[in-house]
Amino acid sequence: MVLGIDIGGTNTKLGLVDDTGVIHHQWSIATDSFKTVESLARHIHQILESKSLLNHIGSIGIGAPNANFHSGNIEYAPNIQWQGIVPLSAVFEQVFSLPVKITNDANAAAIGEMYFGAAKGMNNFISVTLGTGLGSGIVCNGNPLYGHTGLAAELGHLIIEPNGRQCACGRRGCLERYASATGMMITVDELTHQANQPTQKAFISPKKWNNTAEVAEAARTKDPLALKAFDLTAQWLAIGLANAVTIIGPEAIFISGGLAHSGEILLQPTRKYFEDLLFPVLKNSVKLIPSALSEKGAGILGAAALGKMELT
Amino acid sequence: MVLGIDIGGTNTKLGLVDDTGVIHHQWSIATDSFKTVESLARHIHQILESKSLLNHIGSIGIGAPNANFHSGNIEYAPNIQWQGIVPLSAVFEQVFSLPVKITNDANAAAIGEMYFGAAKGMNNFISVTLGTGLGSGIVCNGNPLYGHTGLAAELGHLIIEPNGRQCACGRRGCLERYASATGMMITVDELTHQANQPTQKAFISPKKWNNTAEVAEAARTKDPLALKAFDLTAQWLAIGLANAVTIIGPEAIFISGGLAHSGEILLQPTRKYFEDLLFPVLKNSVKLIPSALSEKGAGILGAAALGKMELT
Repeated sequence: MVLGIDIGGTNTKLGLVDDTGVIHHQWSIATDSFKTVESLARHIHQILESKSLLNHIGSIGIGAPNANFHSGNIEYAPNIQWQGIVPLSAVFEQVFSLPVKITNDANAAAIGEMYFGAAKGMNNFISVTLGTGLGSGIVCNGNPLYGHTGLAAELGHLIIEPNGRQCACGRRGCLERYASATGMMITVDELTHQANQPTQKAFISPKKWNNTAEVAEAARTKDPLALKAFDLTAQWLAIGLANAVTIIGPEAIFISGGLAHSGEILLQPTRKYFEDLLFPVLKNSVKLIPSALSEKGAGILGAAALGKMELT
Repeated sequence: MVLGIDIGGTNTKLGLVDDTGVIHHQWSIATDSFKTVESLARHIHQILESKSLLNHIGSIGIGAPNANFHSGNIEYAPNIQWQGIVPLSAVFEQVFSLPVKITNDANAAAIGEMYFGAAKGMNNFISVTLGTGLGSGIVCNGNPLYGHTGLAAELGHLIIEPNGRQCACGRRGCLERYASATGMMITVDELTHQANQPTQKAFISPKKWNNTAEVAEAARTKDPLALKAFDLTAQWLAIGLANAVTIIGPEAIFISGGLAHSGEILLQPTRKYFEDLLFPVLKNSVKLIPSALSEKGAGILGAAALGKMELT
């Protein structure tokens, strides 16, 4: 079996995954209680040793923020306590004496989709996670797209609005500032501000929503501001995806993440704008569908699929 | 040796290319004098037979507009007399009894750059041809990016201005309507129109230029409108390239084609805007340089490299 480890800023999830994508043992531990990657690796080793599971593991795959497949390092991850360049794969290899491969969580999600999800048998597809940001992984010719530097497939940082919203990456107008949970809440704020202008009569002054689930709920009851927020988000997402299709030529795009839980209230307008923006010859040929992996195990399965792909 | 055939709307160029990229025999024939692909294939066969060169050829590579690597067909090429779906590789295979591979001219240019040009040893790069349109080929993980449908790597059709200039593809705001010889002449026209408005004093009323070479010449003598046209073209090109880098993560971008003959008057401002738009961590890491293939033989070398890559 492969040990799949999904390192997040708050929690690290891990599990033993067999060839069919069944997770046989599963744990979640608090990432931020470990001052170093080595202490995390030793803790995981201890868990598995105490359950006599170490000898079931042939390799380790890890998904982590800003993890670089080429270098094996976490590189300047903003949302994790280990700063700078962290030799993630080297540390785990030493502690476990097993082969280890790492990549960022978005690439791992794509590989998970390919091995255990809806992308089985596909050689060209895109996986998009709409969460706090917009993460993405791309598979071309059957292989994950890492690029020369290991920093490719970053659809969240496509510039879709020159001089647009400020992004944490230092630039302006990146897709993830519009098409993500964070981006949608900014859109809601902007629309609310406009709605409260005396000249603007399109919207009644809205309630304050705390998250995209509440906006989605309001949209389902036909709240015009919530519907407008989804419509704008769908337009921005569609242009990013259409441009990605123009470059990658995928068979399908899989959507997951918190904002994707909105379901058809987001996907339906996104598909409409997306189809409008596709090359005529490609219309109705690129599937835009939810990920087939349950969010609960997706991180572990993605990490395990990486280990399986590279090391077994 | 490989027979490289570069089919254009006006001329078809062909040559016998050895492993080192030397073209040993070279011909150019008028594409539009052949009513069918079969008559073109038979004519080429005849030329080679008459020179006793047929037994020197091991395989054939062909670059042609809208040629699909997967299907082996030319598909709805707007600038060629053979309409609809044309079974290009099947016809050449039958006439020559040799293995044949085809792709579009822009992909062939990228493969040529990889085998015989400045991309030797590179696994991830982008090749861009700025001509009447904007053609591009992409190599990822050492392989050309064809996508699921064979219609990928179409940077010319990245939408960079929603609701922008009308494109022949049916959509609006495609990069090639801005960053190409055609696009730049539209920009010159727009600037000229603005310059002739009574409220606009930034530019003197300019001379009429017939092509981008004349605009480049004017820019070199510091004509403000010509300089502005290059500056705008560079901005648009830079945003398209920066977005492509965000997805592909290439080591270098190679520029060729008619507009690229403008040289540094285009490349210098493009590099400036491009660097501004890159992820901070990627700054100064992606080379933006002219193609190393002389335009004279680039089409033949690209086609031959495809044949070499796939069939030898």
